[in-house]
Amino acid sequence: MSQALQKIIAGRRAAEFVQNGMVVGIGSGSTIAHVIEALGERVAQEQLNIVGVATSEKTRRNAAQLGIPMYNVDDIDKIDLTIDGADQIADDFSAIKGGGAALLWEKIVAFNSRQNIWVVDETKRVTKLNQYLPVEVIPYGANQLFKRFQADGFHPTWRLDQNGNPVRTDSANFLIDLHLPMIDNPRDLGDELIKMVGVVEHGLFTDVVNRVIIGTDSQTAKVIDVK
Amino acid sequence: MSQALQKIIAGRRAAEFVQNGMVVGIGSGSTIAHVIEALGERVAQEQLNIVGVATSEKTRRNAAQLGIPMYNVDDIDKIDLTIDGADQIADDFSAIKGGGAALLWEKIVAFNSRQNIWVVDETKRVTKLNQYLPVEVIPYGANQLFKRFQADGFHPTWRLDQNGNPVRTDSANFLIDLHLPMIDNPRDLGDELIKMVGVVEHGLFTDVVNRVIIGTDSQTAKVIDVK
Repeated sequence: MSQALQKIIAGRRAAEFVQNGMVVGIGSGSTIAHVIEALGERVAQEQLNIVGVATSEKTRRNAAQLGIPMYNVDDIDKIDLTIDGADQIADDFSAIKGGGAALLWEKIVAFNSRQNIWVVDETKRVTKLNQYLPVEVIPYGANQLFKRFQADGFHPTWRLDQNGNPVRTDSANFLIDLHLPMIDNPRDLGDELIKMVGVVEHGLFTDVVNRVIIGTDSQTAKVIDVK
Repeated sequence: MSQALQKIIAGRRAAEFVQNGMVVGIGSGSTIAHVIEALGERVAQEQLNIVGVATSEKTRRNAAQLGIPMYNVDDIDKIDLTIDGADQIADDFSAIKGGGAALLWEKIVAFNSRQNIWVVDETKRVTKLNQYLPVEVIPYGANQLFKRFQADGFHPTWRLDQNGNPVRTDSANFLIDLHLPMIDNPRDLGDELIKMVGVVEHGLFTDVVNRVIIGTDSQTAKVIDVK
């Protein structure tokens, strides 16, 4: 079965965990597009009554177009459940996010949620995190930070748009991607990065997820309860 | 002697540490205004040849008007010396900064400087830090962070402009001021704050300063070499 079908199956399964009356954090990315679609159907067909909180401007627009009332994270009291994707999930359920440039808002929404579900296809599961790590940085001084990442052996690259200009996040910051062979201790690396002046947030998510839903080659998604 | 005169004496003394050919980080605030003025005089009278790096848009404009060529922190290799003020300096030479809303850029410039001088009047010296602590935060989710500061007993207040709207920093973020009776361990508190999702930077500066210059009631400023 293709990766694209795995995303559909996992995304639609995740949407089943949403209950009437919930405030739902809605992630970003290609898998989450299927969650949004499924939630839109449930709103239309079952009169599901929910409120959404977006992790990106794109998600906010897409969900609102399907009839889901979208609120700002500051307009609600608490988010009941957030459903988001991940770029990689390790065996210890740490993850890397930020490939879609939305890691900061995703982390803000995740940390204001009672429960977090991550939805991925099988290719995202790894023993240890070993892909590029996005870091969101303040534009002022970003070149100096880039040089420090180089000196620290983090092998940084700028996230550029198709015109070769630095990508701007929804909070108008830059993204630097770090290329490390393997991340043995994501918690320690995250602590090191967040203390660096000019770093706004990084793509390491540890101690966040409650449930992981994985699209597999069978017709049903695999559901893992983490905590 | 008045506090205003102490600021002049300390500021002019600090400017004497600037040498020909230096890249100079220039801080923000009322005491630093005297440093900028003295540097402008030296540029005009002694043909002092320096390049400045600003910690705020206001400083950049004021210094440029006095004939100091101003560069972005990303345009230069390394800053030789930064001269900045402080809201409070404790006996362990930790400090609180950010009363003028420039703490983020001030910290970025400070951490890219070989040497840092702080210039203050006598009223800024305290045994332990005990004034309000500015924290720069991402606008998205700022209300949730404010509520968490309340729950943590940090007694937060919003930094508002004269129209009652949230102040925007030069990086377009919000400021929340924390009102703690006394900060016993600024390093631990800083570590706790910087790890909170949505916090960009805080006003605690530890292990930064090399030399402190204090305006006193005598005609000469007091110079303390820290490290």
